[in-house]
Amino acid sequence: MNSTSNIKDKEELENGSSFTPSYNADGLVTAVAQHASNGEILMLAHMNADAVAKTVETGKAHFWSRSRGKLWMKGETSGNTLDVVEILTDCDQDAIVMKVALNGKGACHTGAYSCFYRKVTTESGAPKLVRIER
Amino acid sequence: MNSTSNIKDKEELENGSSFTPSYNADGLVTAVAQHASNGEILMLAHMNADAVAKTVETGKAHFWSRSRGKLWMKGETSGNTLDVVEILTDCDQDAIVMKVALNGKGACHTGAYSCFYRKVTTESGAPKLVRIER
Repeated sequence: MNSTSNIKDKEELENGSSFTPSYNADGLVTAVAQHASNGEILMLAHMNADAVAKTVETGKAHFWSRSRGKLWMKGETSGNTLDVVEILTDCDQDAIVMKVALNGKGACHTGAYSCFYRKVTTESGAPKLVRIER
Repeated sequence: MNSTSNIKDKEELENGSSFTPSYNADGLVTAVAQHASNGEILMLAHMNADAVAKTVETGKAHFWSRSRGKLWMKGETSGNTLDVVEILTDCDQDAIVMKVALNGKGACHTGAYSCFYRKVTTESGAPKLVRIER
């Protein structure tokens, strides 16, 4: 590929209207689910091309489970599904943000509302985690 | 490692106060910068242990550049630094959310306020991207 086509590709990737996720070597992009109403980040996971397609097609958030090696619909077991209101992608299209409505009380498998239920504190010196309530 | 210690490790990872990021095979965790005031997700990048330590120590967001193979402080060239207000981690500690204040007009290298400046639309059939203004 010559430098002219590289520049053109970068221009299209960053400013074009083609939705062409930049999957990594494992075929994945990072996906963040953000509550559409309160803006809280609920969870972060990964999507392969199938998960992206299923999410767009069904309006329910789907991911690729790296530990189980399978496609899954968030909430398929717990019932805590995520209805996708809007899908955003970033400049280089290797990350996705989904604005979602949460069905159920929590998005985290621990039962927490958000997976991000702890913050780092350095009050006592070395960084420690403390639980937050929102 | 026996199953008892596995359970104990999982319990500590998910509910403990030890901040022990679960770095992947490349030594990285995913990091999301979210505007502390308006909740907008500004960018997504990666951190190695040095970037995490520098961020905690200085209060300025640092990342690991996979393309350049070096630690960088966000805004070191552009001046658009991110002041970290709060650092959150998720259940399995392989992702970080930073609540930040943005110095400058945009967090994206393209000049956009957020890297997530396009949304997916299926209005004309196949998924396409359209620019959003917030």
